[in-house]
Amino acid sequence: MTTIVGVIGGGQLARMMIPAAVNLGIDLRVLAESEGMAAGLAAAGVGDYRDADTVLAFAETVDVITFDHEHVPQEILRALVNRGVRVHPGPDALLYAQDKLLMRQKLTDLGLPVPDWAAVSNSGELAAFLAEHDGRAVVKTPRGGYDGKGVRVVSGEHDVDDWFEALAGDDRGSALLVEELVDFRRELAQLVARRPSGEIVAWPLVETVQRGGVCAEVIAPAPGSAGRVADVAADIAMAVAEGIGVTGVLAVELFETTDERLLVNELAMRPHNSGHWSIDGSTTSQFEQHLRAVLDLPLGATGARELWSVMVNVLGGPAEGSMADRYPAAFDAHPTVKVHNYGKDPRPGRKIGHVTAGGDELETVVYEARATAAFFQD
Amino acid sequence: MTTIVGVIGGGQLARMMIPAAVNLGIDLRVLAESEGMAAGLAAAGVGDYRDADTVLAFAETVDVITFDHEHVPQEILRALVNRGVRVHPGPDALLYAQDKLLMRQKLTDLGLPVPDWAAVSNSGELAAFLAEHDGRAVVKTPRGGYDGKGVRVVSGEHDVDDWFEALAGDDRGSALLVEELVDFRRELAQLVARRPSGEIVAWPLVETVQRGGVCAEVIAPAPGSAGRVADVAADIAMAVAEGIGVTGVLAVELFETTDERLLVNELAMRPHNSGHWSIDGSTTSQFEQHLRAVLDLPLGATGARELWSVMVNVLGGPAEGSMADRYPAAFDAHPTVKVHNYGKDPRPGRKIGHVTAGGDELETVVYEARATAAFFQD
Repeated sequence: MTTIVGVIGGGQLARMMIPAAVNLGIDLRVLAESEGMAAGLAAAGVGDYRDADTVLAFAETVDVITFDHEHVPQEILRALVNRGVRVHPGPDALLYAQDKLLMRQKLTDLGLPVPDWAAVSNSGELAAFLAEHDGRAVVKTPRGGYDGKGVRVVSGEHDVDDWFEALAGDDRGSALLVEELVDFRRELAQLVARRPSGEIVAWPLVETVQRGGVCAEVIAPAPGSAGRVADVAADIAMAVAEGIGVTGVLAVELFETTDERLLVNELAMRPHNSGHWSIDGSTTSQFEQHLRAVLDLPLGATGARELWSVMVNVLGGPAEGSMADRYPAAFDAHPTVKVHNYGKDPRPGRKIGHVTAGGDELETVVYEARATAAFFQD
Repeated sequence: MTTIVGVIGGGQLARMMIPAAVNLGIDLRVLAESEGMAAGLAAAGVGDYRDADTVLAFAETVDVITFDHEHVPQEILRALVNRGVRVHPGPDALLYAQDKLLMRQKLTDLGLPVPDWAAVSNSGELAAFLAEHDGRAVVKTPRGGYDGKGVRVVSGEHDVDDWFEALAGDDRGSALLVEELVDFRRELAQLVARRPSGEIVAWPLVETVQRGGVCAEVIAPAPGSAGRVADVAADIAMAVAEGIGVTGVLAVELFETTDERLLVNELAMRPHNSGHWSIDGSTTSQFEQHLRAVLDLPLGATGARELWSVMVNVLGGPAEGSMADRYPAAFDAHPTVKVHNYGKDPRPGRKIGHVTAGGDELETVVYEARATAAFFQD
């Protein structure tokens, strides 16, 4: 069988596919944005993923194309498919990770629970939406946002006039997404994987803790989620995967509302920060599973290996030196915690690594994970 | 801190260090014997480890030198140390993995339990040993043996005349090692790791099943070994590590005799086949631990993550095609078993991969591991 997987993008998600690829004897080849990227070890070359010739030439050296990110332009994705290249996830699915307006429309069409939303093209339309939603809402740019960028909480119709102005000059879209400000108790994430021939598996539902729009911590499984909540979340994510035809790993970010509904917030069609715990905490990591899925191999078991796993991101990193400089102290204090270092230079707010702790008592596991991560941040 | 680890030798042991290095952000650089070795992804170059200039040049590009095998000549190891290179394990320790006569003498000096043994230079000396041991014994060449090679069970004084003749032309030694044929119930292996500053940790004692002198299966922990046997084994291995000054991972292969003694059979000063289960079955794999140890970092926890882990080697591989050709069937039947593929071409008797199963019931775990491995061998 074919086992050369090409990954477009050389960030930490591509990097974390390397151990899984080494274990399974899969030849992983990364098209990196530049030298010295996190996934540099597997870099087959450096090139611009927005350049069709670069991507098409890269595709000729591999059996299947997958992604570290969702930013490859649709026209390039479609050119790949037209040439007969296996692309997972494919352009029809990726569209809904690339454009939040299309995503909201598709989820609505599929009958899945989403916040109230509308497409707005000017301040008048925004004013109308605000009037119907107690004067507050969230406005999102349909494209290019991540980690809190391109998201603004608004209470006045002119709060995003700058975005409306920018829209006028963008030929790809002429509307912003406006959503109700959901009154949520907490954020959850449901990770699933689907292979082209249809099999879908779900990992345990997790709770994600965001700080400043960025994922800070993940608790697996989400406390108090056994039973109905977990079942509903898995049903939603599987319906998204099937309805959109996602191949590979799909992360569905969810709001658990104060009135006990689950609403879909965002989608990611690739390994996702909410699934990093699975490297150490699940029988099959999201990275191994993604490789299995894109190669259309039977998927691995997704059970938790510990009663509780807690992942804490290393954001920013130490003020001086590197993560590794802190290993002697961190390893000495926390011999059971698994440390992941993406090989990136520290920079405020940057995700440069994560740690995962596991065990039987949630309080202890949370402490172990947070205390270990604290060694790498000051 | 320094994090460039140079590995001499590009086999599967170096390969399995790659995932651990990626996770910890360690820059692993392998000096491979040839192109296309199992650890090729991390190969910094290709060269002969018996050539001093090659090894010294390689050492200048890394912070610490360690090994995929124990065959680097003493004079080269000592030249490295004399240049100030950090070499772990060092030449004084490796000597005892390179020469079984010196190993037997050292273990005897340390007061550790070993089979009866002698150095014999001719058939007359062998005859004398046989006379004292019911006419049967095991003869080993002190150097160069592995996986059953260089080992012969003898019952006549002339059974190794060919080796005595070869000895006459070898300036490195003029004797063979002869040992009593131990009446053992089973073979065990105790894996420990020691860092240069002295800390030692031990994994659970395991049972190893050999077929034709080659490790076929490993059961962790060794059934029925809780208590005295496990304690004695750990004490022996720690005494070896300290007594010989081993740094990195040390595997001590043991006989459990029918009269309930533990005797040291062989030593390996590197990650070892008996420890492959630890990748999936222990909090810290032997490969991560080896990297921690050679960098003199605090060692990780060595507890078992499952009640039982069973590792089965893939020996030889499929008669046609590759291991990966069997993934669809194997993964479909065994979604919880972890498969490791060394990227080596199948060849009779060759170790090309392994599988590890884990769980609560030993019988089921053994079945899962053997049934999965069977998909890759015919």
